Order: sequence, then C-alpha cells, then structure tokens
Amino acid sequence: MSKVAIVGTGQTKFSKDDDNIEKLLFESASNCLQSTNNLDLNNIDGVLVSTNNNSKYLGAILSETMGIQPKISHSIEHLCSSGTNAIISAYAYISSGLSDMVLVSGVESATNPGQVLEWDKSRGILEHPIYWGSMLTKSHKRKFQTTEEELAIVSAKNHKQAIDNPFAYSNEPRTISEVMNSKQITDDLRILDCSRSCSGSSSILLASEEKAKTLSDQPIWITGIGQKTTSASFTKNILEEIESTRIAVNSAYKMAKIEPKNIDVVEVHDAFSVCELMAVSELGITSNEKSGEFIRNLFNTENRMVNPRGGLIGAGHPLGATGISQTIEITNQLQGKANKRQISNATTGLIHNMSAAGTSSSIMVLKN
Amino acid sequence: MSKVAIVGTGQTKFSKDDDNIEKLLFESASNCLQSTNNLDLNNIDGVLVSTNNNSKYLGAILSETMGIQPKISHSIEHLCSSGTNAIISAYAYISSGLSDMVLVSGVESATNPGQVLEWDKSRGILEHPIYWGSMLTKSHKRKFQTTEEELAIVSAKNHKQAIDNPFAYSNEPRTISEVMNSKQITDDLRILDCSRSCSGSSSILLASEEKAKTLSDQPIWITGIGQKTTSASFTKNILEEIESTRIAVNSAYKMAKIEPKNIDVVEVHDAFSVCELMAVSELGITSNEKSGEFIRNLFNTENRMVNPRGGLIGAGHPLGATGISQTIEITNQLQGKANKRQISNATTGLIHNMSAAGTSSSIMVLKN
Repeated sequence: MSKVAIVGTGQTKFSKDDDNIEKLLFESASNCLQSTNNLDLNNIDGVLVSTNNNSKYLGAILSETMGIQPKISHSIEHLCSSGTNAIISAYAYISSGLSDMVLVSGVESATNPGQVLEWDKSRGILEHPIYWGSMLTKSHKRKFQTTEEELAIVSAKNHKQAIDNPFAYSNEPRTISEVMNSKQITDDLRILDCSRSCSGSSSILLASEEKAKTLSDQPIWITGIGQKTTSASFTKNILEEIESTRIAVNSAYKMAKIEPKNIDVVEVHDAFSVCELMAVSELGITSNEKSGEFIRNLFNTENRMVNPRGGLIGAGHPLGATGISQTIEITNQLQGKANKRQISNATTGLIHNMSAAGTSSSIMVLKN
Repeated sequence: MSKVAIVGTGQTKFSKDDDNIEKLLFESASNCLQSTNNLDLNNIDGVLVSTNNNSKYLGAILSETMGIQPKISHSIEHLCSSGTNAIISAYAYISSGLSDMVLVSGVESATNPGQVLEWDKSRGILEHPIYWGSMLTKSHKRKFQTTEEELAIVSAKNHKQAIDNPFAYSNEPRTISEVMNSKQITDDLRILDCSRSCSGSSSILLASEEKAKTLSDQPIWITGIGQKTTSASFTKNILEEIESTRIAVNSAYKMAKIEPKNIDVVEVHDAFSVCELMAVSELGITSNEKSGEFIRNLFNTENRMVNPRGGLIGAGHPLGATGISQTIEITNQLQGKANKRQISNATTGLIHNMSAAGTSSSIMVLKN
C-alpha cells in the first residue's frame, strides 16, 4: 500500500457573495494545480467534489473545465464534514492502488442547503443549528462552570487569528467585550459565537509516494485517519460530550502512533464557540473543565496552536470547503509556509471536522 | 491489501410510486443484512448512500435507522453511475485497510433530479436524455446499418427477461412489433426504446477476505475495476462510440487478468436500446456492425447473457440504485441463485454503468 501525500493546495477568498459554484471550483482547483511542480494533467486519475449543493455530476464538470480526464469522478456529501470525508476517500483510492493522484475540491455558496435537517424530528421546531449550539453552550456552562467570558475568548481569538488569513470571511478584529455585547440570538448564544455560512472553495491534490516526490519539495503525509458516526438525531447526543470525536480521534492516534501531546497545531470545528472548548477536550489536549482556561492562555500568549487560520468563526464556514481549508492550513503549517500564522517547529498536526451537531466526526493526522 | 467480496444483497421492488426515500433505503438495507450469516452490526464500519436525491446526510440517517454506528458515512452522486461508483469507493476503503465491512445502499424516487443537466449548454434546448439517445440511435443506424427491428429486439429481449425479475418495474412482455409500434417520441426513438425513471432501492454488503468467510457461504469477489470520465458535455462525444467505456473496460480487464471471451454474463447500461448495442461492442463482446445480429441471436436462442434481469429498459432505472442492482444480478448469477434467469456455469461476470450520455463509465468484473 502506498503512503499518501498532500502535494498541492489552493483556495478562494471566503465571502458572502452568492457566487457561481462552478466558477469557485475552477478558481480553487486552478490555484491548487499551479502550486505543484511539473504537473502533467494526464496523471490526475481522480476528481472528487465535496459539497452540499444540489447540482449534479460536478466531478465531471470540474474535470472538463480543468482539462482533466480522470478515471474516478463523483460528488461526496456529508454536511459540514463533506470535505474531510472526500479527502479520506481519496486517500483510500490511492492507498488501495486504484488511483495515483486525486484532486479533491470543496465548494459551497452562501445560500447552500444542508443547515436545516428536516429528517431529524427529534429537534422539534428547533431545526436550525443555533439551537443545538445553544443547548451545548448552556450545558457546558452548567456542568463545567464555563463563563461567558471564556466562551467569548474563543471568538475573539479566532477573529484575531483570521486577520492574518487572506482567504478568511472576516478580517475584522473583535474584542472580548465586543463578542459579549454582540446581538443575543438565544439565551446562551450571541451572533459572534456563531460561524457564518458563506461562499468559497478550496482544493487539495493528493498523490502516491512515488508521484509525490516529483510534484512537491515538501510533501505532507496523511499518517492517521479516524471517523465515527454515532447517530443522525441530535437528541441522541449526551450534551456535554462529542462521543463521535472521541472515538474517531482514538482511531487516528492509534493509526498515526501518536498521543495528544505530540500535536503541534490543530484545526477544530468551531461551528459555535463552545464547540472549540469541547473539541480540544475530546482530542485529549485538555479537559472540559480546563478548556476555558486553556484557550484563554493561548489568547493571552498569542499562541496560535488552535485554529491558526481563524477557525470557522473567523474564516467562515462554506460547508463542503471547510474540511479542505482546515487541511490546507495544517499542510501550510507543517511546510513552514503559514506566514504570520506560523507555529514554530510544527511537525505534527491534526484536523477535526464534524457534522450534524457532532453526531459524526472525521479526523486526520498529518506529518511533514 | 485485502481482497474484497460481496457478502450480502437486498432490493426493493422498482415502481412508479413516489415513495419516501428513507423508507426505501431501510427496506433494501434490511433485506441485504438479513441475507448474511451471523452478522454483527457492530462490524459494519462504513455506510455509503448513492443517490441523486437532494436530501442531506443520508449515510447517517440510514445508519441510525439500521442501528449501525459506522466509522465512514456519506452520500455519493454521479448521476446514473452513482451506485457503481459507491461500490468502487467501498472497495477502496476495504482494500486500503480503513474499513472491514461496508454497506452500500442506492436509492431514487420516481421524481428524482439528475435527468436534466443544466450545466451542459452544448445541448442547447435539448437537455433531456431522449435527445442524446435519439442522436446516438440515428448515428448507429447510419454508420452500422442497424435496423429498427434490431433496435426493437433489444427492448423486446429486456422486457421478456424482466418478467422473471421479481424486483423489475415492468413485468409485461413486449413483442418486437409492439416496440416498433409504440409511441414515437423523436425521429429515431419510440417510448419502448427508453428506460424509465422510477422509485427503488438496492443494497449490497462488501467485506474484507477475513470477514467474508464468516458472512457468506458463497462470497463473490471484485477482481477488476475500471473507470473513466472523458468530459461532461455531450457534444464532446463521438456519436458512434462510448470512449469512456472502452478505456474503463480495458483497465478492468487488465486488473482482472481476463479477456472479453471470458465473460459469462454481463449487465450493461441500456438507457436506450442503442446503448446496449454500443456497450456490448465497446466491451469487446462483439462489434458495432455485428451487435444487432448478436442481440438477435441471444433473443432467438433465449440466451440471457446480456442484461438477464431485464436491463434498465425492463427493470427500470432508479438512478442511484441501478449500479447496485446490476451488481446484485451478477452476484446472484455467479452464486447460481438467479432462478429462472440463471446462466449455466457462470463464473465470471461484468457490470457496465455510465453517466451523462456515456461521458463517464464505471466497470467491475466479478468472480465466484
């Protein structure tokens, strides 16, 4: 079985414009292919598109617009973690020998579907994500004595970090006080606690070990993978836990033969502020009880270890592109190419993505 | 790398009812899991749904309704070949070691999207599949002197064969004369030359070699895979060829180490009568010039080698389920469980599926 490397990356600016998705796909895919050395398009034998958009056969459309005639092409959808799942699927194609080089492109428009989950009747009328975000927040405050200020620090930190991300939706600094005084939308959530749906696309090129060496001076290797779906219904969740993340990350750590202490930089799925606190806990980096203090320390010391590109709250959340942009950030960090966002001496990074109120999680560990 | 086997299959009746897709998925998946021996649901670590339906996170929904908590879950879309692509994706997960056992369930409702391809402006106002079906038919008649009777025999044969398929949309015999006198819908197509969109679901369980032995007395092995996307635009096609099929099948033959003469039974994508003639030619079973005569001989001798379950014309075409039902038919044939449809002594079978006027093709070779 071949090792699998990331050999190219490309993104579009995330924005509130309701852009044409084919145009966005083309832009990020073009940027991605231009980031490689000596690429022959004839060697790309897979094109996967991750999206919640209702358009059909986007894999073939992207292939044609890029001048690629792949073996494998199709679209993958799994709400917020579509992009991570598509990368893991591409890993499987390469590792199994069915493919040598796969382009994975995620895309969403600001008006994307996939936020309101009509199937989950257990949510009652509360089908918009803000309601589960609110319930998780209330629960975290109650069980772990998490303060409103600690929650606001997550957002302030991520907005601050997004300023140095040229592709981010938001480039405005937001103070703790601004977050705490922003518009209240439920008892426990303010508008600046929430990630924003937006338009955007990101692309990544994966290759087998043999191909990787010619395409990149600094291939980044996928060394750990873990995934778990515990349910589809929100009300099957235990409110203080993201069980799917805990199970998935344990698989990923085992496959990568690492422990939480080995992680230098991490992208976590902060759909809402509370999700970042819960995620760093489930990843074993800290505990729920200490998570508020942990993030406060990062903020105070300007340590960008968690969500260096600004997370979903700062960078925006174009569903199908999010997991790919998270992976690009860790790739850049491990290549030492993250500019002002750079974590020094990062050699091991982790991507955490999840769907549907954390009922599914997908994890990858990357190494340089 | 593990070998990959088919260890369970299940279907629903294909019909014109606009059934709830979650209900259809549940029915075919239940039938599939009940077809195995000693199955522990905890061992299913992948659930893939193939569909053109716009519903989101169906992989998680199917998992929850079935009582499965997989690692991997998501949906795959690539128009008519969604199902085959999902099976090949599952193969990659198992072969790469990321998964041991994957449930692949395809579903469509009679009102499914995915027929009208708005992106392909090269079709002008002729965006419905009947127009490319009509152009391919005219072209085949002109270049290969294919007669209207030869085209009608494809439909008559497939309708006849569908009578013995309990899951088929149509169970009515249609004579050659009935086909030739059915409603004319373009210069070169009559209504009985066309496959019908319908509701239906089919499911298949794939497992690694180690797991397969405990789950089935007759595991069927996937020994060859080939895929190709040449374009997304119909007008990039050469009208007398399905280039994507020819390229894909050559890959599959090479991987399976077989030649066309080794194929005992084949499922081909007869979206329209002419597609069956073109497919058996591109697969190397006959030539375009002789394809009409070849199918006539099968019909006259009641040889069910091509599309024994009735093809898309006889069995119906619920897009996301079609490739899975094709694979189930070849599985049943190689297990000697195809009842009245059985080809004697079948040991090697092939599935041919394609999308978007043949601009993409996916092929699998199965062995018992």
